[in-house]
Amino acid sequence: MIQISTEAVRSEHDLLGESNVPANAYYGIQTQRACLNFDLSGIPLHHFPELVVAISMVKSACAGANRSLGLLDDDRYHAIIDAVAEIRQGHFHDQFIVDMIQGGAGTSTNMNANEVIANIALEKLGYEKGEYQHLHPNNHVNMSQSTNDAYPTAVRLAILLKHGDLVTALASLRDAFKAKSVEFADIIKMGRTQLQDAVPMTLGQEFQSFASTLTEDIDRIAGLSELLKEVNLGGTAIGTGINTDPEYAAIAVKNLSNISGFQLIPAFDLVEASSDMGAFVLFSSMLKRLAIKLSKISNDLRLLSMGPRCGLNEINLPPQQPGSSIMPGKINPVIPEAVSQVAYQVIGNDMAITMAAEAGQLQLNAMEPLIAYNVLESMRMLKQAMDMLTTRCVIGITANKEHCQQLVDQSIGVITAVVPYIGYDNASRIAKTALATGRGVLDLIRDEQLMSEDDINEVLKPANMIRPQARRIKR
Amino acid sequence: MIQISTEAVRSEHDLLGESNVPANAYYGIQTQRACLNFDLSGIPLHHFPELVVAISMVKSACAGANRSLGLLDDDRYHAIIDAVAEIRQGHFHDQFIVDMIQGGAGTSTNMNANEVIANIALEKLGYEKGEYQHLHPNNHVNMSQSTNDAYPTAVRLAILLKHGDLVTALASLRDAFKAKSVEFADIIKMGRTQLQDAVPMTLGQEFQSFASTLTEDIDRIAGLSELLKEVNLGGTAIGTGINTDPEYAAIAVKNLSNISGFQLIPAFDLVEASSDMGAFVLFSSMLKRLAIKLSKISNDLRLLSMGPRCGLNEINLPPQQPGSSIMPGKINPVIPEAVSQVAYQVIGNDMAITMAAEAGQLQLNAMEPLIAYNVLESMRMLKQAMDMLTTRCVIGITANKEHCQQLVDQSIGVITAVVPYIGYDNASRIAKTALATGRGVLDLIRDEQLMSEDDINEVLKPANMIRPQARRIKR
Amino acid sequence: MIQISTEAVRSEHDLLGESNVPANAYYGIQTQRACLNFDLSGIPLHHFPELVVAISMVKSACAGANRSLGLLDDDRYHAIIDAVAEIRQGHFHDQFIVDMIQGGAGTSTNMNANEVIANIALEKLGYEKGEYQHLHPNNHVNMSQSTNDAYPTAVRLAILLKHGDLVTALASLRDAFKAKSVEFADIIKMGRTQLQDAVPMTLGQEFQSFASTLTEDIDRIAGLSELLKEVNLGGTAIGTGINTDPEYAAIAVKNLSNISGFQLIPAFDLVEASSDMGAFVLFSSMLKRLAIKLSKISNDLRLLSMGPRCGLNEINLPPQQPGSSIMPGKINPVIPEAVSQVAYQVIGNDMAITMAAEAGQLQLNAMEPLIAYNVLESMRMLKQAMDMLTTRCVIGITANKEHCQQLVDQSIGVITAVVPYIGYDNASRIAKTALATGRGVLDLIRDEQLMSEDDINEVLKPANMIRPQARRIKR
Amino acid sequence: MIQISTEAVRSEHDLLGESNVPANAYYGIQTQRACLNFDLSGIPLHHFPELVVAISMVKSACAGANRSLGLLDDDRYHAIIDAVAEIRQGHFHDQFIVDMIQGGAGTSTNMNANEVIANIALEKLGYEKGEYQHLHPNNHVNMSQSTNDAYPTAVRLAILLKHGDLVTALASLRDAFKAKSVEFADIIKMGRTQLQDAVPMTLGQEFQSFASTLTEDIDRIAGLSELLKEVNLGGTAIGTGINTDPEYAAIAVKNLSNISGFQLIPAFDLVEASSDMGAFVLFSSMLKRLAIKLSKISNDLRLLSMGPRCGLNEINLPPQQPGSSIMPGKINPVIPEAVSQVAYQVIGNDMAITMAAEAGQLQLNAMEPLIAYNVLESMRMLKQAMDMLTTRCVIGITANKEHCQQLVDQSIGVITAVVPYIGYDNASRIAKTALATGRGVLDLIRDEQLMSEDDINEVLKPANMIRPQARRIKR
Repeated sequence: MIQISTEAVRSEHDLLGESNVPANAYYGIQTQRACLNFDLSGIPLHHFPELVVAISMVKSACAGANRSLGLLDDDRYHAIIDAVAEIRQGHFHDQFIVDMIQGGAGTSTNMNANEVIANIALEKLGYEKGEYQHLHPNNHVNMSQSTNDAYPTAVRLAILLKHGDLVTALASLRDAFKAKSVEFADIIKMGRTQLQDAVPMTLGQEFQSFASTLTEDIDRIAGLSELLKEVNLGGTAIGTGINTDPEYAAIAVKNLSNISGFQLIPAFDLVEASSDMGAFVLFSSMLKRLAIKLSKISNDLRLLSMGPRCGLNEINLPPQQPGSSIMPGKINPVIPEAVSQVAYQVIGNDMAITMAAEAGQLQLNAMEPLIAYNVLESMRMLKQAMDMLTTRCVIGITANKEHCQQLVDQSIGVITAVVPYIGYDNASRIAKTALATGRGVLDLIRDEQLMSEDDINEVLKPANMIRPQARRIKR
Repeated sequence: MIQISTEAVRSEHDLLGESNVPANAYYGIQTQRACLNFDLSGIPLHHFPELVVAISMVKSACAGANRSLGLLDDDRYHAIIDAVAEIRQGHFHDQFIVDMIQGGAGTSTNMNANEVIANIALEKLGYEKGEYQHLHPNNHVNMSQSTNDAYPTAVRLAILLKHGDLVTALASLRDAFKAKSVEFADIIKMGRTQLQDAVPMTLGQEFQSFASTLTEDIDRIAGLSELLKEVNLGGTAIGTGINTDPEYAAIAVKNLSNISGFQLIPAFDLVEASSDMGAFVLFSSMLKRLAIKLSKISNDLRLLSMGPRCGLNEINLPPQQPGSSIMPGKINPVIPEAVSQVAYQVIGNDMAITMAAEAGQLQLNAMEPLIAYNVLESMRMLKQAMDMLTTRCVIGITANKEHCQQLVDQSIGVITAVVPYIGYDNASRIAKTALATGRGVLDLIRDEQLMSEDDINEVLKPANMIRPQARRIKR
Repeated sequence: MIQISTEAVRSEHDLLGESNVPANAYYGIQTQRACLNFDLSGIPLHHFPELVVAISMVKSACAGANRSLGLLDDDRYHAIIDAVAEIRQGHFHDQFIVDMIQGGAGTSTNMNANEVIANIALEKLGYEKGEYQHLHPNNHVNMSQSTNDAYPTAVRLAILLKHGDLVTALASLRDAFKAKSVEFADIIKMGRTQLQDAVPMTLGQEFQSFASTLTEDIDRIAGLSELLKEVNLGGTAIGTGINTDPEYAAIAVKNLSNISGFQLIPAFDLVEASSDMGAFVLFSSMLKRLAIKLSKISNDLRLLSMGPRCGLNEINLPPQQPGSSIMPGKINPVIPEAVSQVAYQVIGNDMAITMAAEAGQLQLNAMEPLIAYNVLESMRMLKQAMDMLTTRCVIGITANKEHCQQLVDQSIGVITAVVPYIGYDNASRIAKTALATGRGVLDLIRDEQLMSEDDINEVLKPANMIRPQARRIKR
Repeated sequence: MIQISTEAVRSEHDLLGESNVPANAYYGIQTQRACLNFDLSGIPLHHFPELVVAISMVKSACAGANRSLGLLDDDRYHAIIDAVAEIRQGHFHDQFIVDMIQGGAGTSTNMNANEVIANIALEKLGYEKGEYQHLHPNNHVNMSQSTNDAYPTAVRLAILLKHGDLVTALASLRDAFKAKSVEFADIIKMGRTQLQDAVPMTLGQEFQSFASTLTEDIDRIAGLSELLKEVNLGGTAIGTGINTDPEYAAIAVKNLSNISGFQLIPAFDLVEASSDMGAFVLFSSMLKRLAIKLSKISNDLRLLSMGPRCGLNEINLPPQQPGSSIMPGKINPVIPEAVSQVAYQVIGNDMAITMAAEAGQLQLNAMEPLIAYNVLESMRMLKQAMDMLTTRCVIGITANKEHCQQLVDQSIGVITAVVPYIGYDNASRIAKTALATGRGVLDLIRDEQLMSEDDINEVLKPANMIRPQARRIKR
């Protein structure tokens, strides 16, 4: 909540009348009204620098288009460009103060940007802050724009600006699992389905599967981020392009591509694009999918490290903190636990996005600020969680090789490997006997002379049970 | 999808014009239009007999009120009452054919009831089906009612009619866990927090906790079902009670209480009650809470029965079917797995209800049919799942007592019990050494002479570790 | 729930012992056990013929691979192929009776298929049902397979088999909106943002935006269905390919591609693919996105048709049924209401899928049956809802052209078009005055002589307000 | 993320070894490890002062119980009590720095409290921070406690401490609607069901329904907060009460009741209570229900104020900020829009809580920190949103009385009132004719002489249409 100083102020006016703003503020009256209206999430725009930078880039791109069309003079153009350059360098971010959750479909975010850029530009032109007759937030900074095209374009761009960090964190995690899969390539262990002993595999195969599943998501995030490159800039208020020149949209989007380095394209139906949240919905769903995978992997790490004495105890997670205020020596899998919690929050955020997207009405979706907030927050948290999982857990995992082997040796699951030789019914009978009597399945097969000793040795060789194998005897 | 016979038909008309309905159908033209309009869930009204019965009870109660006020003559009254009696006995349910998911805020359900009851009543009066001039679905069966009060009242009543079955299934499951807790009262085992070995407890305590948590939900379901006893009957179209006598609402609700055996009360604000879905939202949330608990318990049963050779293997679930098409002898925890799936569906249904409830507009919530469908379906599935869990799993669970004891004996977690005697820091050090060296914690304590042998024996007696205990030595 | 006849039966046995099955049943003992275990959703497998066909195709493809590798003799191969051919023609579907919600990760579905195919094949070979010594559900029909690769492959294939229907329904709906957009191309109306009057557009543009947004989803569904073409056939129990020949997986997948007509490919990491539900999660998310769009469109149709006398009343939806049991003449937007309800159910189903996907553990996801059920059910309901919306609503929509024009004429929103000429601050002032006094904005502009009459006429020509326009005067 | 100063530090040690903490820090080594581990939500514990106060109260209550039982000496007791008193006065909150989302089931929160209180207490005893041999975070501050009972108890208490603020905000909003309902008592308007014209009501009735629905939630929140008064203090690690005196639990809970002013009671099954999240699930569901209601009301306010010229325009929301960067004079319903967004976030948070609650395993739910975070955050945001809605919207709403009356006068819906006199079929026919011809329904009734003029005048008197009315003629 901003504090309105009673001392040094300047007066501004808008549709609703006059109001004082702090004299040293670069934001103006509309930003201030928004701050007074919305104190909800407690998270200001500048919490997401990518959004501040993105909307500034939009202003820059539009100023360029307006100048190209002869609508904006050179002085004002340069002042706006210079103001944006400062923001891109990280200055003035503290002036972007509106709450991320706001009514008005992003108007307050857009006006915060318009006002801050106008006032920086005014100073560059030698004027005082607030002397909007020389360079006006709406008439010049927002020229040829509406919140309804500038804001959705900025949100898309902000996601694009950050998705590289997300993918980098994901790739690092994938690499960490990959490295472990090599380290654990020779450790034979029991695979488990439905939490019951199944058939043998290597711990390396298990960790490789973690790497593989994350690799898929790297591709998928890249693929779906393409959808965000279709922007509605130039549609203005409702997508009809009112108050723009026929050539404007193409120039503005091309400028924004050049500025941002992303190959943006104009939406093929700007009316549709003004209200459609589909790209955000699908991108958030993809974040949800990643969250689901991270939580599943984290749960697996917790299961495999159960113990130390009364659980599976196949792997050890590196200790990061004492586990208990009452139980000395206890170490808990705190890192995977935290990852799952982040995953649940991302899933919850996706639900908030779902509801907001469904609430679009007619030519706009007024709930877009909530969507922007949740997508950006989910990306941020997933990145943090993956970095944590990589550095504070995966790279320090060690295996209990002997214990893994012991479990395989005493298991019944190896019976599966001999089914092609003795048939499903014989094998079922023997498995049942083994379980009831505590005897080993191999002993029982030998007793009944169901297979030759050679076949037994060959078929049950660990290396032969962890991959396809041509049958020694065809039936 | 109904098939419209081309042969024996009768003609009916409504606001939209004439249409033929099968001559032998007790439903009429509006029911038929609804069937042609909605082929969505594939689940007809009569899939939920409680709903068919409930709306018929409403018709009966209103007919009584109308007669009391001199608005409905005795002949028609008795014909309606007799028709409802038949339906309550289970007849004519196959005439309630509209899809549970329907537009129109339940109008089609209400008209299906109005039409079926009118035609049964007409026959009782000696007329042909369709001779509505003698007894009309709207003018007589629906007299003093609107869908907007009759339908919500019926849905509430349907839930009340079924919630006894739900609670019975829940109580049986609770009892089954309770019985096991007695059976397992003397089995000492390791408790686990965050999947890591913690401190000892009995298996009886663990199963008692399942019983306890379900007991709470018995109370809670009963408590929240009270909210459903507040009905908006008498509010008619929008809660203003248009087209009703000032005395009507009170009489109708009293009648319905008598008929149903539930102490229903009129909502204190009928306008509010016409559109408010709050009671359904909270009741569904309670079903969600129960689902969460059932899934948590099911997951615990799966964890405790992991194995048979390579997992915790503390308990055995009774085998219900072979577990694998390829792995002979494998038995899977299929019953708890199915319970969790039902739980997830109930949680999904709750989300559908949430969205439907939020979509209410002005004087009505048009999405109430979806809410009714999901609440009733969640209740049905939870009941089935609990019966399955009780009879096909819990009552057949056995324990591996020796294995449980072995795990305790080899654990480090017992160190906790000596912290009040040797302090947290000493205990931490010893636990760490035990883990690193594989030695037992008691040996290490004895080596360091940190406690007397008497104290050790007393403090570490299993019976003393599973409940509060006065300290032998106070510090 | 199946009824076990006490008369004509045959005895079968499995790991758990002997049991009678109806003599005329093609399913066997394991199917029957599953039916006794699971009575949850009430929806049997054959409710989704695509799943019955898909798993049968898998059996056919595997039989082919086994024969190629010399593991299955010609007689049995042909018998299996012939049995599958019958099922693909629609026969024997009533033998697929297991509940869609089942524990066991699909084992019961797989065994239902194995047993039915075995018994049909036995009869083709001249044997009796149940004479499994000649052709065995596990040894022959399930040869080289596990539920854990056969079932996920079948579910993916089932979705592929049905997604064409979904896309067809979607394309028809899109076409219906497209046709209306042409019909309504010349109707000028007010666009609305945040439910407030904004700037003019055509009703054709509005309906074109519905068509456009659905076109995007046609592409997207096609794109994401590609993910389902990656199958784990050949991975068997846990993805290691135990009990398969090294050449088997490639042959089996190639066979299945030929049989199904879809270009399937083997997953690059079969261990990962055994437990990963990512493709289902993303496909269901795409169904959710479509649901969100359909609900948004339906809400718009309801808003635009509010009335008839006291709302926007810009369009008329075709009446499909009387709207009220108490209010004569009332017609409600029942079709869009039903569409939104289906959308909410699909969103709920997606949540169930999310939870099930997150619950995967180690080498398998035991909750996959719930995922299969919800994806197939969401597809089915969306298709039904879109067909309903197309045929019972969109194609019959008419517009109230004069009323639309009237609203534009009396609106303040046209002020936006003159901002480039008179500036934002002047325009704000005039808009405020217009609202306060009830006067028209043009009158006020003329009063103040802020623009020439020529400019006014040109700028405010409807055709000029609904698209970009070069400025007459550059500033 | 904390910055570890390289200068003034003190060394501490724990199970994992030695580490430096800032010399002036009141937190210790375990807090610091947690900060390094978890940088996820970015929200530190002290963002929720109620949680800091609540866990401190728990420490105070337990210290009292320990002293009563002779386990803690007077000096240490008083030092702890005094430390807690400071925290309750708002001091030292900046030392509670761990991220709200954390692995370890709250251990880091508990240790943060233990360490801060220990160090404050040490200074009160004349020692230096870190001289834990005199007063130890675990041995003394945490005496007779585990995270697993202290933390859940503190979270429950924190919610209780804040729920008064929530109810106050709710009551104020209710009162604001109530006041408007009185103000609008005489404004006749059309009621609408399914967005279609229904029957008349007063605007006062409509606003009263908002007040009524919120009143119910005041009661319900109070009722469900009772569930939070059952605490598991005394259960320690897993609910068995290990390391506590048999009399301890009762004394500790009684102390906490006295300290907090809430009548807390010990859970009847402490093992169950250690892992059960049911009370949080239901309380969050109740917050969800409130969110649903607030969003429905907000949507209604937006619908009723649609316009100003092209919508319902029955009410005017007070303008709070200019509505558009491009459309001068546009005012948007930004406050209700923001309320709905908060509602969606609360619903998303509830989903995160649902998943976290379902993830409980065996004797604990490791995801409780996420649950605590989301419940507290939802409460905070709902309070802010309601205060905003009250002060920035509801109290300033005005009505357009003439326009409301006009809409009623031109509507067809009044036909409903005459159904008891002319029958449903006659009324349907007349409504249809009215709609087709544009004529008024009363004219048509008069034309057909279906009612006497007296009856018409009486029945259609506004005051008679908005409440039940005895029929003038009984049929």
